[in-house]
Amino acid sequence: MPNTFGKLFTISTWGESHGPAVGVVVDGCPPNLPLTPAEIQVELDRRRPGQSDIVTPRKEADVLEILSGVHEGKTTGTPISLLVRNTDARPSAYTEMQEKYRPSHADYTYQAKFGHRDPRGGGRSSARETIGRVAAGVIAKKILAHAGQVELRAYLTQVHDIAMPPRDTLPALAEVEATPVRCPHPETAARMIERIKAVRSAGDSVGGVIECRVQGLPVGLGEPVFDRLEADLAKAMLSLPATKGFEVGSGFAGALLKGSEHNDAFEMRAGRVRTATNRSGGVQGGISNGEDLVFRVAFKPTATILQTQKTVDVHGQDTELLARGRHDPCVVPRAVPIVEAMAALVLVDHWMRHAAQNQTFKF
Amino acid sequence: MPNTFGKLFTISTWGESHGPAVGVVVDGCPPNLPLTPAEIQVELDRRRPGQSDIVTPRKEADVLEILSGVHEGKTTGTPISLLVRNTDARPSAYTEMQEKYRPSHADYTYQAKFGHRDPRGGGRSSARETIGRVAAGVIAKKILAHAGQVELRAYLTQVHDIAMPPRDTLPALAEVEATPVRCPHPETAARMIERIKAVRSAGDSVGGVIECRVQGLPVGLGEPVFDRLEADLAKAMLSLPATKGFEVGSGFAGALLKGSEHNDAFEMRAGRVRTATNRSGGVQGGISNGEDLVFRVAFKPTATILQTQKTVDVHGQDTELLARGRHDPCVVPRAVPIVEAMAALVLVDHWMRHAAQNQTFKF
Amino acid sequence: MPNTFGKLFTISTWGESHGPAVGVVVDGCPPNLPLTPAEIQVELDRRRPGQSDIVTPRKEADVLEILSGVHEGKTTGTPISLLVRNTDARPSAYTEMQEKYRPSHADYTYQAKFGHRDPRGGGRSSARETIGRVAAGVIAKKILAHAGQVELRAYLTQVHDIAMPPRDTLPALAEVEATPVRCPHPETAARMIERIKAVRSAGDSVGGVIECRVQGLPVGLGEPVFDRLEADLAKAMLSLPATKGFEVGSGFAGALLKGSEHNDAFEMRAGRVRTATNRSGGVQGGISNGEDLVFRVAFKPTATILQTQKTVDVHGQDTELLARGRHDPCVVPRAVPIVEAMAALVLVDHWMRHAAQNQTFKF
Amino acid sequence: MPNTFGKLFTISTWGESHGPAVGVVVDGCPPNLPLTPAEIQVELDRRRPGQSDIVTPRKEADVLEILSGVHEGKTTGTPISLLVRNTDARPSAYTEMQEKYRPSHADYTYQAKFGHRDPRGGGRSSARETIGRVAAGVIAKKILAHAGQVELRAYLTQVHDIAMPPRDTLPALAEVEATPVRCPHPETAARMIERIKAVRSAGDSVGGVIECRVQGLPVGLGEPVFDRLEADLAKAMLSLPATKGFEVGSGFAGALLKGSEHNDAFEMRAGRVRTATNRSGGVQGGISNGEDLVFRVAFKPTATILQTQKTVDVHGQDTELLARGRHDPCVVPRAVPIVEAMAALVLVDHWMRHAAQNQTFKF
Repeated sequence: MPNTFGKLFTISTWGESHGPAVGVVVDGCPPNLPLTPAEIQVELDRRRPGQSDIVTPRKEADVLEILSGVHEGKTTGTPISLLVRNTDARPSAYTEMQEKYRPSHADYTYQAKFGHRDPRGGGRSSARETIGRVAAGVIAKKILAHAGQVELRAYLTQVHDIAMPPRDTLPALAEVEATPVRCPHPETAARMIERIKAVRSAGDSVGGVIECRVQGLPVGLGEPVFDRLEADLAKAMLSLPATKGFEVGSGFAGALLKGSEHNDAFEMRAGRVRTATNRSGGVQGGISNGEDLVFRVAFKPTATILQTQKTVDVHGQDTELLARGRHDPCVVPRAVPIVEAMAALVLVDHWMRHAAQNQTFKF
Repeated sequence: MPNTFGKLFTISTWGESHGPAVGVVVDGCPPNLPLTPAEIQVELDRRRPGQSDIVTPRKEADVLEILSGVHEGKTTGTPISLLVRNTDARPSAYTEMQEKYRPSHADYTYQAKFGHRDPRGGGRSSARETIGRVAAGVIAKKILAHAGQVELRAYLTQVHDIAMPPRDTLPALAEVEATPVRCPHPETAARMIERIKAVRSAGDSVGGVIECRVQGLPVGLGEPVFDRLEADLAKAMLSLPATKGFEVGSGFAGALLKGSEHNDAFEMRAGRVRTATNRSGGVQGGISNGEDLVFRVAFKPTATILQTQKTVDVHGQDTELLARGRHDPCVVPRAVPIVEAMAALVLVDHWMRHAAQNQTFKF
Repeated sequence: MPNTFGKLFTISTWGESHGPAVGVVVDGCPPNLPLTPAEIQVELDRRRPGQSDIVTPRKEADVLEILSGVHEGKTTGTPISLLVRNTDARPSAYTEMQEKYRPSHADYTYQAKFGHRDPRGGGRSSARETIGRVAAGVIAKKILAHAGQVELRAYLTQVHDIAMPPRDTLPALAEVEATPVRCPHPETAARMIERIKAVRSAGDSVGGVIECRVQGLPVGLGEPVFDRLEADLAKAMLSLPATKGFEVGSGFAGALLKGSEHNDAFEMRAGRVRTATNRSGGVQGGISNGEDLVFRVAFKPTATILQTQKTVDVHGQDTELLARGRHDPCVVPRAVPIVEAMAALVLVDHWMRHAAQNQTFKF
Repeated sequence: MPNTFGKLFTISTWGESHGPAVGVVVDGCPPNLPLTPAEIQVELDRRRPGQSDIVTPRKEADVLEILSGVHEGKTTGTPISLLVRNTDARPSAYTEMQEKYRPSHADYTYQAKFGHRDPRGGGRSSARETIGRVAAGVIAKKILAHAGQVELRAYLTQVHDIAMPPRDTLPALAEVEATPVRCPHPETAARMIERIKAVRSAGDSVGGVIECRVQGLPVGLGEPVFDRLEADLAKAMLSLPATKGFEVGSGFAGALLKGSEHNDAFEMRAGRVRTATNRSGGVQGGISNGEDLVFRVAFKPTATILQTQKTVDVHGQDTELLARGRHDPCVVPRAVPIVEAMAALVLVDHWMRHAAQNQTFKF
């Protein structure tokens, strides 16, 4: 099931960018959770194109329908089927792209793998697939908030070479949403916006880095040895379009420290075992240790640019491609709710797995 | 099955550092593959402690036994059970550690999660668990070599702040094995060794970065949308002890480029669709594109250092810990065969998955 | 994923009887298979209520929509999302049943398990859930027919105590569809119909037995040791509503034979290894042996009867229930396409699994 | 993972009849469960050949070794690796069988599927594989007994055409173990023994039926819609060697009743919702309803008989085979602990799954 993610709390997404609809089936959701289309819609609107002048002007209402698994406003424990119709399909804009492989897109690899693909808007490889992830993530975030006072927040820390200063506390949602780039450091955000506008004018694009921080996790989530919490988070993040890297805690910079500098000393604080520092990023031996979970995800610059590029067509001929139409000079701000969604899905799944083994039977 | 990795070609490891044995069960291996204990032993010896003067002097023969799945020197398609007895268990060296949580180790989180653990040598969280991964990886590497002329090679590119110059070709095995640090750039290797000796003298430790490069992969491995090739590689790598980061192709540095600089133009070469550059790292849309697969893994400095550290004991009291005994100032060279093994396991699994969907039935 | 079936060719069903819709996501389907809504509709119409005067008069068009995974009339290898809107929901007919647990239905166990359920028409436990299975089964049957000349046919062999004589060849589809009971033995079919009408008049119900026969399977499908072909078929069949038993080949009657009577002698026929008899039912050691695969499934009498029954209400009070409204005196004829669908799904999945391990790499 | 069973509480068996050893890895076991080799040994001894004069005289000590997952006599929540060395391998007795496919054994299908097999004693298809199941089942039974006062008991109800009268209460273990046939009805047991001795004298074999009854299960185990409790039990049972059928509750005989006769009326008893009868067999809608779980499994007569049989050799020539050596005229009594083990494994797995979804988070 390549299109399914999770073990106990699972999501299965389906749909192509310009097909009739995209959707997701959430299986394993606990019963009795209040759930309305409106609260899912809020997050879809965060992900939606056309929210500001720095993202693609593609306009889609992305109206969510709940088709199953909810009765009288509460989940029933059966599969929750969520659907969003595609309304702004403009196949004409994509005619040239059917013939020519867009550089650093998935056109060629899908064609080579399957021998047949829906080329309209990238088909299955389009970021519209993430609508289902965000919708399911709303449920996961709600579970975390209700059941454990767990709060998680993703935010931009870098666009191109513009990075905000490191922070070690959870920003408020309002801080993140204060600017369209979703960077909680206002001065940096302003510079990021400026840069994005500049590359847009040049028909070019930039990437960036998203950090995600989770507060309030219990100790014990994550499984030895393959399903470590950070391993499943890494997979979740690298399963997102345009991602090129993942790091937890000290990350790649951790290699630059000595053990005596990197180790997180244990200490008792308020009656709990805590660490004095958090270079581990909230996980030790693959298991959450009760500190803030902190990880970062690198996104490459958007592959679609409004410049002439060398490429190859479906007949194996060298050619050139000049993309026209809608263009997102930096997708990273829109990826913020997607990173949050995926993180929440991993955490709920692991919470259920931990409980199953360690709390079902007591000896 | 937290202790199982893979979907069609699966490995399940078991065993504690100081229990009777460690082992692995490989399920789903194709039949008729020639396999002897000796060829597995070669790789175990690469991973083994005590190979040089820059790693832990713990001496274990690590003698491999094949208990099932091989008949008359060839695999039968049934589970291959591999076992290595633990022989150098010295419980006395670990008495203090049973009482005190070692900083940045898994002692505390295992105790908190399970309420009971084998503390000897880290128990299940010990890197001895990776013996099973390396043994299984031999089988995977052999399949790749036989069936597809696929060659994969991991090597150290960085220790502490000492990094070798970037390279874009596959180093020969002899280049990698030329020095105990497994860095194929001799001058850099020499400096790395010097640095490791220095930190060892100080009772300290350092981390580093391993790069892995795979040549000869077919186009089409990797699945949309969750089981992307890089997503499964990221999970595989972050499931290794001491890892803090993963990146593919341009990685985190990719965020510093514009789309016009980062995109890999397609071109026809020798009758095949190729890319002019390889910032994608061999995957596009989660699927291998026929270029070299290239990824990097960040390892933190070894948590065990021979210095006094603040910590907490199992009774919740603040205390200090001074580790004694065997000590590996830099585990990264020994992780090289483990990274190779995990990469090979991911690739064989995806190869089988790709074939199942796309080559079983033809329309 | 309790609502997902299969390992490589998977289906995930969702939906409640009186919710907005029911549906299924098929993941892992090979690309390039021609597929139209019309050919799925044909099988849905076989399963649909209101086909004849011996089944429930509930009238629903059950119009199928393909939402993804098919482009220009051919599958793309991405998830196929299929949806059927519920149109004949009459909640008023179910008011009493919301308060009272219907005997031998799932009302009580769902309530006890989840604490919240959609009671309308049985909600998730309704046989409407099987619409998704039948729709997915069309795809599986088409794959089998195209790729391997495999034909499979289910048919009624028993209603109440009326059983047709044993047969050891595959009946033609026309023979099965000749009567509304789908028994390919006309005289028996006539008696079955008479019996069903009689029990319907009495407000009662009857069960029966379905046999399924598969011709043209290759040797080698099925996996040692847990995923034997008959084990996965048994699970598939017992996952259908109202089933109480499964047997393959000689089945329960096989216990009445001695080994010398039961063993299937091997013999060469037309250059192939064949068995002289087929008490094994086409599987040996869990693996198909090239003979016809033959199994049977027992269905209990429909739980809904138009008679006063003792029961308990949701408040824990003893009470009585007199069902009104639509009533299917014998569901077994409508289960015939469902049994076929599930069998086809198991076979395609195992075919892909077999190929993955045994045909991807050759040594 | 064809050699793995279960989703949260999983077992992976490995080993061939005449290889060095057979074993099992249990993953997902709750921590802190007391466990000793001795208590596993007890059950292995029930399964072991050579226990009485009606089973095969093959003598193997079947000494169990615990290699991991248990520390200081209690489980640690990590994989439990269990191993039994094969000691009574007599390859010479099997020379003829390497060349000739034994009728109704798995020799031919394994050869056809894999192209290579270990023919000694049936290799992987030997019932020695079930040692791992029985060993793991001890753990599962212990969990059930400790945590929920759940007791389960399997017993022979039929050998050949000799059947005991139906019973609707759980027999004591002593009743079952009173005779070597493990039928808790002494008169019937005596006749069964007589029959088995008679067929043994004739070099022939017989099959039979095992019933299993589980008392004390909570309401709510089993998942809609594919992972129904009876579906997973059916799979578990049909995954055992020599099984041909499975039925739950009324089973195939249920088809002979009318709905008005078959339905289990609900009633309040001792403050709980109960059913007046138990034709459902303890499951409704795939979910346990708190009544006794009751199912039956049909076993064919042992395929190995000491008579000349027609067969085919590995070169595709018609030939004859006269088995010599050890011979089990009726394996069914030895299958009793195996049926119990598999049932216990299914129940623990479902208990954990139920708890994960319904008890981890409360709203």
